[in-house]
Amino acid sequence: MQTRGFFAESAESPMRPFTFERRDVRPNDVAIEVLYCGVCHSDLHQAHNDWKNSIYPVVPGHEIVGRVVDVGSDVKKFKKGDTVAVGCMVDSCQQCKHCRANEEQFCLEGATFTYNSPDRITKEITYGGYSQHIVVREQFVLSVPENLDIARVAPILCAGITTYAPLRNYGVGPGSRVAVAGLGGLGHMAVKLASALGAEVTVISRSKSKESTAFELGADKYLVSSDAKQMEEAASSFDVIIDTIPVEHDVSEYFPLLDLGGTIAMVGQIGPAPGFNTLPLVFGRRHLTGSLIGGIEQTQELLDFCGRKNILADCEMIKMEDINDAFVRLEKGDVKYRFVVDMKKSNF
Amino acid sequence: MQTRGFFAESAESPMRPFTFERRDVRPNDVAIEVLYCGVCHSDLHQAHNDWKNSIYPVVPGHEIVGRVVDVGSDVKKFKKGDTVAVGCMVDSCQQCKHCRANEEQFCLEGATFTYNSPDRITKEITYGGYSQHIVVREQFVLSVPENLDIARVAPILCAGITTYAPLRNYGVGPGSRVAVAGLGGLGHMAVKLASALGAEVTVISRSKSKESTAFELGADKYLVSSDAKQMEEAASSFDVIIDTIPVEHDVSEYFPLLDLGGTIAMVGQIGPAPGFNTLPLVFGRRHLTGSLIGGIEQTQELLDFCGRKNILADCEMIKMEDINDAFVRLEKGDVKYRFVVDMKKSNF
Repeated sequence: MQTRGFFAESAESPMRPFTFERRDVRPNDVAIEVLYCGVCHSDLHQAHNDWKNSIYPVVPGHEIVGRVVDVGSDVKKFKKGDTVAVGCMVDSCQQCKHCRANEEQFCLEGATFTYNSPDRITKEITYGGYSQHIVVREQFVLSVPENLDIARVAPILCAGITTYAPLRNYGVGPGSRVAVAGLGGLGHMAVKLASALGAEVTVISRSKSKESTAFELGADKYLVSSDAKQMEEAASSFDVIIDTIPVEHDVSEYFPLLDLGGTIAMVGQIGPAPGFNTLPLVFGRRHLTGSLIGGIEQTQELLDFCGRKNILADCEMIKMEDINDAFVRLEKGDVKYRFVVDMKKSNF
Repeated sequence: MQTRGFFAESAESPMRPFTFERRDVRPNDVAIEVLYCGVCHSDLHQAHNDWKNSIYPVVPGHEIVGRVVDVGSDVKKFKKGDTVAVGCMVDSCQQCKHCRANEEQFCLEGATFTYNSPDRITKEITYGGYSQHIVVREQFVLSVPENLDIARVAPILCAGITTYAPLRNYGVGPGSRVAVAGLGGLGHMAVKLASALGAEVTVISRSKSKESTAFELGADKYLVSSDAKQMEEAASSFDVIIDTIPVEHDVSEYFPLLDLGGTIAMVGQIGPAPGFNTLPLVFGRRHLTGSLIGGIEQTQELLDFCGRKNILADCEMIKMEDINDAFVRLEKGDVKYRFVVDMKKSNF
C-alpha cells in the first residue's frame, strides 16, 4: 500500500514528508494505521547519523500505537480494528537461544529493528513509525489494554520497557529501594513504574529544580547529587539505581549509594565512562550493568501492567509536520517528558 | 604471651624480626601457634604503604594455619591441639545486617582485619600471621579438614575465598562456563575451584606461555587475549569471568566474551579503569562487579569443600627470614603460585 511519512535524506537535511510503498501483508503480517508515534532520542540520533550507522533515507519512530487495518491469512492474534502497538523490533530469527528465551532484542542473528534495519526477507531497510501505516510480523505486534488513553501509550514501547526490564530483572517490588538518575523520557517512566511495582523511589538530580515534578510523578524522596552531605547520608541505601542520564558522566559517583549487592543499570548514555573506578564495586559487591529495551513477552507484560495500574506517559502532543522543531527542543531537553506525534491531527 | 614476628617499621625499611606481646586469651579467644602463613600481595602493599593506610609497625599475614595452644573459658568450638585457620578478619560487630547475613567483611562498623586494623576493645593495631602466635576471637577461627596437607592450606584463606565467593555468588556449577584472567596466586585457585565446582574452565592470558601449566591446574581451555581471532571466536561464550589481573588494565576488552547476563568479577586490581566503555554492558546485559574475600561461614564452607575435593594451593615454601627476597620475587610475579612461610623451619 502507498503511505506517507517523514524522513531524513541525510545527516544534515531536515525531516520532510514523502510518499512510499509499504509491503503487502505476508501471511503472518499485520498492517497498522499509525495513530500515535513517540519521539525517542534515538530517532534524533539516527536522523543525524550520530551513531554512524544510519542508512538514508531514515524514517524514524519506534513507539507506535495504531489500529489494525489488515491481517495476513495466517494471523491469529489480531483482527481489523484492534488497537495495537509496535516497539523497537519488528522481527528476529525466532530460533536462537535468546529468541527462544523471549529475549529477541539479543537475537544472535541480530534483531530486525523497527527502522534503519534490513528486513530479513527482502533486505529492504525498515521504515519506522513516522508514517501513516506500518506492516509488521504478527509476533512483534503488541496488544494495548482497552482502558488506556492511547494518546499516552506510545512512550511505553521504548522509554517504558527500557526502564521496566531492569526493574523486573533485578527483582524490584514492595520493599525495594530504587533510585532514578535523570528525569527525562526514560526517567519519568522509571519513577512511575518503580513506584507502581511497590518500591520506594528516589529521584537523583544535580539540582533541586525538579523536586516538585519528581514528587508529582510518584517519587518518595529526592536526592541532590551536588550536595555532598545528602550524598553521604544516602550511602548504601539503594538496591537498584536506574541511570537514565543521556550524556557522558561518571557513573562511579553513584556506586556508594548502592547497598551490598546492589545494581546500577545504565539505560541512557552508552560509551566511554571517563573516571570510572572499580573500588566501590569491590567494597560492597556492587554491580554495574546495562540494559537494552526488553523482549516481546516482557513488553506485553509491561503493557498489561500499565493497563492494570493505569500508567501512562506524560506527553506533549505534536503534529508530524512539527518534528523538526521537536528535535531542536529534544536536544535541549525541553520536553515534559515525551513528544508524541498525533498522526490524525497531522497534515502532510 | 611473648612471641616473635617479622615487621615493617616504615614503608622503606625491610622486614625484620622483633619480639612482642600477644594479648592473654579473653573468654572467647583462641590462642594459636602459627605453623604456616601465606604471603599475599596485600602483605607487600601494606608493608610498603602502597594504599596509604599503613600504621607502623606492620606485621602482615592473613593466610594462617596453626594449632590451638590455649582457649578462653567460653570457647566451645575449639580445644588445644586442633588444627585451625585464620583468614583476613579477626573480628566484626556481629550485630549489623551484614554481619547477621554472614558477610562480616562488609560489617557496617568495619570489620577488624587480621593486621593493620584497630582491635575493637583495646584499639591496639592488629598484628598478622608473620609471627609465631596469634590470638583470635573464636567466631573468626576456622576448622581445617584433617585430610588436607596443612602446608598447602594457607592460601585458601585469602586467594581461595576471594575467588570462591564470586564463583558461588554467581551460581557456578556443572555446566557453567568460567574464564579466569590472570594466573597468579588468585588465578590458580580460581581455576582449581571452578573446575572442582564442575564448570568448564578457560584460562585467559596475554601469551601462550602459561598454557601447559593452565591445563595442569585443571583448565579445559586456554584463550590468548592478544590473538584477535581467538577472542572473536570466544565471543559470548562465558557465564562468569574471574578477573584476577593485579595491575591496571582495560576490563572492557573482556566484556564481549560474556554471554547474555554474564558477570565479570574483579578481584585483582582495584581502582581507576581507564578506557572503560559501557557499550558491551548494554548489548548483552552483562555485569561488572567486584568481590571482597568472603564471610566466615562461606570461608568454612570453602575449607570443607577443599577437604572433600582435596584441593590445595600450589606453594613454594620459604622461611620467615627469607621474606624480603620473597617480596622482591612476588613483585615480579616470580612465584608458582604462592609463597608460604613454614614457621617451624624458620629461624629468627
